[in-house]
Amino acid sequence: MKMVSMRHSSLFFLVWILIAFQIRSTLADRSTYIVHMDKFAMPKAFATPHDWYLATINSLKVPGATNSDKLKSMPRILYTYDIAIHGFSVVLSFEELNSLQKSPGFVTAYPDKVVKLHTTHTPEFLSLNNISGLWPASDYGTDVIIGMMDSGVWPESKSFNDDGMTEVPKRWKGICQEAGDFNSSMCNRKLIGARSYQSGAVAANLRAESDGDSPRDANGHGTHTSTTAAGNYVEGVSFFGYAKGTARGIAPRARVAMYSVSGSVGAGSDLLAGMDQAIADGVDVISVSMGVGWTPLYEDPIAIAGFAAMEKGVFVSTSAGNAGPGPKMVENGVPWLLTVGASTIDRQSSAILTLGNGMTTIGWSEFPVNALLEGVQVVYNETLLACNSSELLSEASTGKVVICNDDSWELATQIQVVTNSNVAGAIFISNNTEYMETRSLPCPGIVIRLAQIPGLISYVTSTTNPTVTIKFQQSELGARPAPAVSYFSSRGPSSTYPPILKPDLIAPGSKVLAAWIPISPSAFLESNIVLSSSYILNSGTSMACPHASGVAALLKGANPDWSPAAIRSAMMTTASHIGNDYSPIRDNGKSLRYATPLDMGSGQIDPNKALDPGLIYDADAQDYVNHLCLMNFTRKQILMITRSTKYNCSNAADLNYPSFMTFFNKTPLTVHRFRRTVTNVGNNNSAYEANLKVPRGTTITIWPDTLSFSQKYQKLSFRLSVYIKDMNTSKSYGSLVWKEVGGNHTVRSPIVVYRIV
Amino acid sequence: MKMVSMRHSSLFFLVWILIAFQIRSTLADRSTYIVHMDKFAMPKAFATPHDWYLATINSLKVPGATNSDKLKSMPRILYTYDIAIHGFSVVLSFEELNSLQKSPGFVTAYPDKVVKLHTTHTPEFLSLNNISGLWPASDYGTDVIIGMMDSGVWPESKSFNDDGMTEVPKRWKGICQEAGDFNSSMCNRKLIGARSYQSGAVAANLRAESDGDSPRDANGHGTHTSTTAAGNYVEGVSFFGYAKGTARGIAPRARVAMYSVSGSVGAGSDLLAGMDQAIADGVDVISVSMGVGWTPLYEDPIAIAGFAAMEKGVFVSTSAGNAGPGPKMVENGVPWLLTVGASTIDRQSSAILTLGNGMTTIGWSEFPVNALLEGVQVVYNETLLACNSSELLSEASTGKVVICNDDSWELATQIQVVTNSNVAGAIFISNNTEYMETRSLPCPGIVIRLAQIPGLISYVTSTTNPTVTIKFQQSELGARPAPAVSYFSSRGPSSTYPPILKPDLIAPGSKVLAAWIPISPSAFLESNIVLSSSYILNSGTSMACPHASGVAALLKGANPDWSPAAIRSAMMTTASHIGNDYSPIRDNGKSLRYATPLDMGSGQIDPNKALDPGLIYDADAQDYVNHLCLMNFTRKQILMITRSTKYNCSNAADLNYPSFMTFFNKTPLTVHRFRRTVTNVGNNNSAYEANLKVPRGTTITIWPDTLSFSQKYQKLSFRLSVYIKDMNTSKSYGSLVWKEVGGNHTVRSPIVVYRIV
Repeated sequence: MKMVSMRHSSLFFLVWILIAFQIRSTLADRSTYIVHMDKFAMPKAFATPHDWYLATINSLKVPGATNSDKLKSMPRILYTYDIAIHGFSVVLSFEELNSLQKSPGFVTAYPDKVVKLHTTHTPEFLSLNNISGLWPASDYGTDVIIGMMDSGVWPESKSFNDDGMTEVPKRWKGICQEAGDFNSSMCNRKLIGARSYQSGAVAANLRAESDGDSPRDANGHGTHTSTTAAGNYVEGVSFFGYAKGTARGIAPRARVAMYSVSGSVGAGSDLLAGMDQAIADGVDVISVSMGVGWTPLYEDPIAIAGFAAMEKGVFVSTSAGNAGPGPKMVENGVPWLLTVGASTIDRQSSAILTLGNGMTTIGWSEFPVNALLEGVQVVYNETLLACNSSELLSEASTGKVVICNDDSWELATQIQVVTNSNVAGAIFISNNTEYMETRSLPCPGIVIRLAQIPGLISYVTSTTNPTVTIKFQQSELGARPAPAVSYFSSRGPSSTYPPILKPDLIAPGSKVLAAWIPISPSAFLESNIVLSSSYILNSGTSMACPHASGVAALLKGANPDWSPAAIRSAMMTTASHIGNDYSPIRDNGKSLRYATPLDMGSGQIDPNKALDPGLIYDADAQDYVNHLCLMNFTRKQILMITRSTKYNCSNAADLNYPSFMTFFNKTPLTVHRFRRTVTNVGNNNSAYEANLKVPRGTTITIWPDTLSFSQKYQKLSFRLSVYIKDMNTSKSYGSLVWKEVGGNHTVRSPIVVYRIV
Repeated sequence: MKMVSMRHSSLFFLVWILIAFQIRSTLADRSTYIVHMDKFAMPKAFATPHDWYLATINSLKVPGATNSDKLKSMPRILYTYDIAIHGFSVVLSFEELNSLQKSPGFVTAYPDKVVKLHTTHTPEFLSLNNISGLWPASDYGTDVIIGMMDSGVWPESKSFNDDGMTEVPKRWKGICQEAGDFNSSMCNRKLIGARSYQSGAVAANLRAESDGDSPRDANGHGTHTSTTAAGNYVEGVSFFGYAKGTARGIAPRARVAMYSVSGSVGAGSDLLAGMDQAIADGVDVISVSMGVGWTPLYEDPIAIAGFAAMEKGVFVSTSAGNAGPGPKMVENGVPWLLTVGASTIDRQSSAILTLGNGMTTIGWSEFPVNALLEGVQVVYNETLLACNSSELLSEASTGKVVICNDDSWELATQIQVVTNSNVAGAIFISNNTEYMETRSLPCPGIVIRLAQIPGLISYVTSTTNPTVTIKFQQSELGARPAPAVSYFSSRGPSSTYPPILKPDLIAPGSKVLAAWIPISPSAFLESNIVLSSSYILNSGTSMACPHASGVAALLKGANPDWSPAAIRSAMMTTASHIGNDYSPIRDNGKSLRYATPLDMGSGQIDPNKALDPGLIYDADAQDYVNHLCLMNFTRKQILMITRSTKYNCSNAADLNYPSFMTFFNKTPLTVHRFRRTVTNVGNNNSAYEANLKVPRGTTITIWPDTLSFSQKYQKLSFRLSVYIKDMNTSKSYGSLVWKEVGGNHTVRSPIVVYRIV
């Protein structure tokens, strides 16, 4: 009955601690189970599966239970599922579960999961523009519907205005749910649907029933992610004066349908219900900024419902999780999902520091008010430098600016100490990048690296009355290097499905500006003030995921016939591995050393290039099943994912994935042979040549090394073999790039060689 | 050598304490003197008065001083004056002054004064609009130049943009002074001139020379007053979210010429130089939001330079000072100046308080950030109610909202205590109106009267977990009663010139929104954070004065031929004595009892009515001299004011002033006879009937009681006699209203009867 699960949290206030979560039912000794049933075993007497499931539950035989016991507390069906799975979720005792397992048509049952949530200069940073590329090609996503699985929506946010939006697509079958503080008039041509699912969370005591079953966002997360993916244009927004500008989503004309499946935490049964309904309602893209942790695919509601979505041609984008920078923590590492890691952007909230002698530098700050620090006395001494005592600081420096160095004490601690003191401000000397990626600043301070302004110490020590001026609410654009892999972004390989390289790619996820709800904290100020704002900077792979969802929506708008695998392939093979400093993308989690494919997959998403990828690695549902077979998943496990006996294991095979993952152990020589097929979505009569960057310690052969297409949509196959010989490292990286001969297309796939210890 | 003087301060942070200020020169034993000379005594040998003054100073004979002494430190002439006075200011020792007094042409010399500064929904509140009345009639002041005597100007303020401004009037002779951080390109069609005068302040050690002689505003006061008078349109401004809207001055198309004559304090010699130059440069209106305290008119630089301005047809508006609500503290109580008191407006910065049970009310708050207090626990107990210990509050209520009642402790103290504690917020129960008029709020709180929400105490005492929600950054419009006389506004009678009722009128002066400088404090937040803002709410008669200056500019634009006295008469006789609650205007300094003419003069300025006053009480320079003669000013004293022997005392007479002030002592029967002449500026063939409201304890006769005009500009005289008989109070008030027969004009003058103790 243990339900180990988690939410991919927003990182706004702190990195969520990954905890094993025991879901207990509100009824003593009962828990929620997700039950798969064999639809084809339904007796003809039942008009609908739901009737059958109800009858099944009502007929449960529990030893020792009297009829009056049963009447007092009948097991409750929470949801009946029809697309994502065939079956239902139900609150059962262990005895009832035992009885259920003997019922006709029963396939399997597993405990519900706790779902955790993962979190607008970004369109420019991703080169989206009105002149050319993906925005005009897709009409900004006008005909595309994005289904958000999240914490709900704040319909009054200006980002959900429908100015300039055309009529809702006729095929839309969803509704705008009336409940509590939500009514159908809150939907419009931008926010076209909203539903709420919380029975599972209530049953598991994750959420109070009194919340009301309303799609209104009480957390902020869903409002942020949905406006990141598809918010309409709103001028003049900022996060307390930082990141000022026009907010809009990546697909500013796409439609948003919110499926509220989570409060601050959620239940897998609710998420499953939301995805089930979203597919039925007719969404084109599903965005899931949450995860259930490291669960076998056949018990993971996102993997299971994601398979159903993929079968129906619905693209599913998910967040990789925020458990970086250590290895093997990626979540949603599922072959048929897009798994999105997070990256930094080239904008930094900042302050300008000017010394009394005129020397100046720019550093990080997010102090949320326009504090006036003009020619204020600065205090420097060795004792205060540790900034580890609010009392000491207040005694020595009330009304003055202090200098803190995080040699001996953590920056986060020092900031807390300064916040609790009475100093006028602080200059924090630190190389810590994690804090700046994910936290805000409640005290009037600036964080700089000492190398930025080497004259600082000599100025403050040799001047009689040293002073500083700090100007807050600045925003630096063009910061380098960017993108970099975000400190927190969960790194590969996938522990639940190692043979497919995950994450697939990275997208902006650090300090993303999007809409927020006015009743949830936006920032902290000093030790006792919580601030509210309609737009906030938020960090997390939760914020990266809807960027990719928005790009997927645009690609779907531009190429309505592309399969989910084709859309993902286009994103991956065109992703960039070069940053704005013209060197390989770096990793904030590794002191800005170069990032590897285990950190960033194929690299930074590049929407305009993804519009025209040249070649595509396509795959369909049977292809994924073939790979599950190759990985020795049992028939039952596969059935739990596919709900259908139409798939079989007669053709276990490698997956036609746009990246290459090789495992080896200490065997002196290993060879890993890949077979791939690419579809020409570029020009007739085009040829591509293989360009290999061979991982250290390996030899690679490719055949053929030229692919000559006579027709668009023609498919050609190739074989790539990796020979591991003299590897003295545990990991090694390379790439295959198909370069168009006499053309501009480049089709890049990372190659990872990874030793299993 | 004592220089008793003061600044009419801004009230932004605290009411300035009136202190006698001893100006000392930077040279030991020397002080600055303002020296009047008889221009007509200048020997023909000198080409200019300046040459003559220099020669006079260079020839001073000081007993015992050697030539080398003299060379080491020659007395320095700071300014030569030519219009405001004939003479110069000079830094002299007492011995040198003695020698100077024997020089040919010497008239008089007196010590320099310390000048103190006195501080936008107001156009609407004053009914200015684009459809009718004074704005369109004056073309918004397009051709009018306002000379500001103040602390300088921040030319980068958006309020000085010149969008929509026509070319600078050709008659303009001023300059845009290049100095330090100011250059001529900073002027434009809105800010047409800027000069700086600080020699007197430097000589008196009131200001460091290193400031640079730049017209740039280092204080904020001058930027606020000048944009109040004539700022251009700027959309979307606020004071930290309060008072949001479009800022613009009263005369939004008038020109601003800044004469920077003050830092945080100023010297009279500098002010005199600024007014001298402004008259020469061709300004139409001079705005002086400062005062030298209670100085004899013949030694008061504002009175002296104001006389010269009046002679040249330049209107001078001054502030009454902020020494209210006690009596007899009005400054600038000078017959030829407009003396402006301050009033409240109908907008209140506010917060909305909602109890957990849904009860709600609106109260005052100016907490400068959007703090989130949503369903926060509220703590109520008798001990905490006094809110007199930060430690006690923090111990009991960290993170909670407390309730404070100012029964036993001052509201200001309680706010300080809460600011220093760790509570999440506070509800202050108080009837204090002074605090809200002049102070801001550094802690997350709301001030309410208990009567507003009588259920508060029973809710917090009878509920298990009482909670409150407070929403900040609200603005309430239509607050009643408004206007009211501001708490701080200095009240009459004028101690330096009692026979003329002062102040003349009141204008908005409490919480006026106008531009500010980014380098000066705008608000305080918590105990250690100072905030910066480009627009602030500021309070003081300093803020009322430029409202009247703006109205004077508009009237000058609409009626270029009106004399300063005519403009003032139009403002005074049309001023309103009725508030927006349709009862007489009330006095915030007297617990909202009705205000008297000693508090508000003729009442609240009414620009549109002033455009069409019907009748005017005019006066010229000789008329003012005649009254000085009546008041027994000596020939020399009169010469110090008028600089000219062309005036004489052959016709000592009452002044044709649009208000009536009667003094009496304990004599059983007194009669005070006034003679007045009104000019018909309304229609041909119009008649007016006298309507008297007779002060208690008096009898009044008026003859004639009907005035029949056949022509526009015709003058008619009347006599009004006040017989004091049975007065058992020390003060009594009435009015004379000339009502047009069959027309709309009403011409109102207050009557004050005042016992000298």
